[in-house]
Amino acid sequence: MTGFRYLSFLTDYGLEDGFVAACHGVGARLAPHVAIIDVTHLVPAGDIRRGAAVLAQTVPYLPPAVHVAVVDPGVGTARRGVAVAAGDSVFVGPDNGLLSWAMAASGGATRAFSLTNRQLWLDRVTATFHGRDIFMPVAAHLAADTDLTAAGEEIDVGDLVTLPAPERVVRDGTAEGEVLTVDRFGNVQLTITASDAAAIGVTPGGAMLLRSGRHQLTLPYRDMFGAVAPGELVAYPDSAGLVSIAVNGGDAARRLGLPAGARVTITAAPQTIPQ
Amino acid sequence: MTGFRYLSFLTDYGLEDGFVAACHGVGARLAPHVAIIDVTHLVPAGDIRRGAAVLAQTVPYLPPAVHVAVVDPGVGTARRGVAVAAGDSVFVGPDNGLLSWAMAASGGATRAFSLTNRQLWLDRVTATFHGRDIFMPVAAHLAADTDLTAAGEEIDVGDLVTLPAPERVVRDGTAEGEVLTVDRFGNVQLTITASDAAAIGVTPGGAMLLRSGRHQLTLPYRDMFGAVAPGELVAYPDSAGLVSIAVNGGDAARRLGLPAGARVTITAAPQTIPQ
Amino acid sequence: MTGFRYLSFLTDYGLEDGFVAACHGVGARLAPHVAIIDVTHLVPAGDIRRGAAVLAQTVPYLPPAVHVAVVDPGVGTARRGVAVAAGDSVFVGPDNGLLSWAMAASGGATRAFSLTNRQLWLDRVTATFHGRDIFMPVAAHLAADTDLTAAGEEIDVGDLVTLPAPERVVRDGTAEGEVLTVDRFGNVQLTITASDAAAIGVTPGGAMLLRSGRHQLTLPYRDMFGAVAPGELVAYPDSAGLVSIAVNGGDAARRLGLPAGARVTITAAPQTIPQ
Repeated sequence: MTGFRYLSFLTDYGLEDGFVAACHGVGARLAPHVAIIDVTHLVPAGDIRRGAAVLAQTVPYLPPAVHVAVVDPGVGTARRGVAVAAGDSVFVGPDNGLLSWAMAASGGATRAFSLTNRQLWLDRVTATFHGRDIFMPVAAHLAADTDLTAAGEEIDVGDLVTLPAPERVVRDGTAEGEVLTVDRFGNVQLTITASDAAAIGVTPGGAMLLRSGRHQLTLPYRDMFGAVAPGELVAYPDSAGLVSIAVNGGDAARRLGLPAGARVTITAAPQTIPQ
Repeated sequence: MTGFRYLSFLTDYGLEDGFVAACHGVGARLAPHVAIIDVTHLVPAGDIRRGAAVLAQTVPYLPPAVHVAVVDPGVGTARRGVAVAAGDSVFVGPDNGLLSWAMAASGGATRAFSLTNRQLWLDRVTATFHGRDIFMPVAAHLAADTDLTAAGEEIDVGDLVTLPAPERVVRDGTAEGEVLTVDRFGNVQLTITASDAAAIGVTPGGAMLLRSGRHQLTLPYRDMFGAVAPGELVAYPDSAGLVSIAVNGGDAARRLGLPAGARVTITAAPQTIPQ
Repeated sequence: MTGFRYLSFLTDYGLEDGFVAACHGVGARLAPHVAIIDVTHLVPAGDIRRGAAVLAQTVPYLPPAVHVAVVDPGVGTARRGVAVAAGDSVFVGPDNGLLSWAMAASGGATRAFSLTNRQLWLDRVTATFHGRDIFMPVAAHLAADTDLTAAGEEIDVGDLVTLPAPERVVRDGTAEGEVLTVDRFGNVQLTITASDAAAIGVTPGGAMLLRSGRHQLTLPYRDMFGAVAPGELVAYPDSAGLVSIAVNGGDAARRLGLPAGARVTITAAPQTIPQ
């Protein structure tokens, strides 16, 4: 598989420095025909799980591409870099689980290569900036005319590091899960899907009982968060097909004290109890 | 009118998530020949007025384009989406006033269509992410080879929701207005134009008396804020032709306690009183 | 020298407003064949030194380009704008030292022109937004088909404003320098190079004694900051070839109280003293 018109690029490099631009420059030099779509560069530093969630929810809407992702607290240690074919795309980054959810969302990894072919790296490789010196040049070569098999030694796709799939269990009329991620607006996205909710009798127009630790709360469940009055809490099936909780015009994560990873359960509630 | 080489894109989606990238991906899939110019994605969440002001001041410098803007606190409610021809461009977004100032700045709306043609949307439309599922795909189709008239049902341009024009009144030697917006530097932009100021005798090199509530202050009026010493307040005709107030090297909005929407009046002052 | 496929763009304009987009729009109108690589727009307002450091460390990885940089606290005052050939690129911006380190990193300025040819500016030039009205249109013309010599009056490259080179002195087994910059992660980058460190016997695997004011501290010196346990301080040769100090997973600048410009010295230490 060679030849891509697009690269996508996700990191925790931030936007204050020239780190992202240096990588863009490397890509432009090696694959001038390619357009780069920045997914985000504001993943909290080293937060692999958050990077994985954002990448997995975005990739289905991107064109076929070489997806480069670098959230890499182990840069310079023994963790390997990989290039992996999945679906109609190629994923390039550290083998630390960051890519795993997005590859699953793309149909699963079919072939994987450890980045051992230094011919595809920059001539001078620093120990702390593999995004610029290894991942981006490898990706740009793959987007140009280099075959994936030239990236390095082939490895078993079963040996790739994967993050545990977001947990969710549905039984006895209860859906258990956790907070997958919190977005900029403070909307709280659960690992529980809208289909899970339907399976336990929670459907738009109804209500749910949300429990987390010793706290519990009844929430209206609506098609969209605009369906409740400003300042009110609401649960809804979100744009990724997951149950999310919002405050219309406010910050639900702060209101509820629910960070990423917090355990929650939901059950159907007979009706909405006014907050 | 069909065929555009550029899309512009303004939202309140923030840059921490993959929301903007998902929209870029949808655009790239449907209109690969198009380049996207991001206006900003840091409009405060739901702040239609701020989005409208930024868009209106930027659009005059952009090439002919399909301008997509999404600040949409009513997403998923009954508010309609629209595609509107104005000047040499097309505007796509929610019909909530967000587009109105920019369309006026582009010469005014000439034809408008409600986005009722689902053929131009993504196959699966979520209730909460119309930017990705409706506005961007419609815009990409319009930038490619779809005629504006195919967007949906034609509506009367007089029925489009418009924000009240920024208020300003000039009489009896006084210009009354309000704070239109505050930028990153804390520069305070008034709705009062440099021409209004000239009409009441406030010209560069002179001074003005600024009143807001019970507070008043005499300010030098200069061609540029670099004309005063660091730390000093100054009023000046800004890059949008409006009167702005700055602190050279500081934050005038914080110093003066003047948020967007605050009412102000200015009159000519005989001379600058030292701060 | 005419004809570039790329512009790069660095400012302190921030991303909340439409300032950057207006400049992109001007570039797109005048040089539609050109791609713009944004270096960063989050240089702290007016911080010429920080802008110069980011630009100089990024430019070596960018393709040949017209590099436009605007950190310009003196906008509208007598400081001149310049276009300067250096290496295989052209630099455009205010003549205030911002460009000087990047031009040195590109091989040094060879010809310089004061931007006096108003034919290349926008028709209407405001006093406060030269990025949009002068620098970007000049750069776009130069990237298209306008020869550098048409930018304005030629000036002596020796008359260009330069920032003092980052200070560093190596003598008697001690390397003296200062904090060049602090990145988003709180990593502290010194002006002292990895080669300087080697010259005084500080090599990866060893340790250094860091002094700043009355404070001193012994730090392990490793190939990468991932080599120490989370929460531990470490010095390392960074991606720019300079000695940097990090806390693995933390913020070294805050921990050490070392802002940009702080004076430091390092010497070899016999072994790492536990923190």
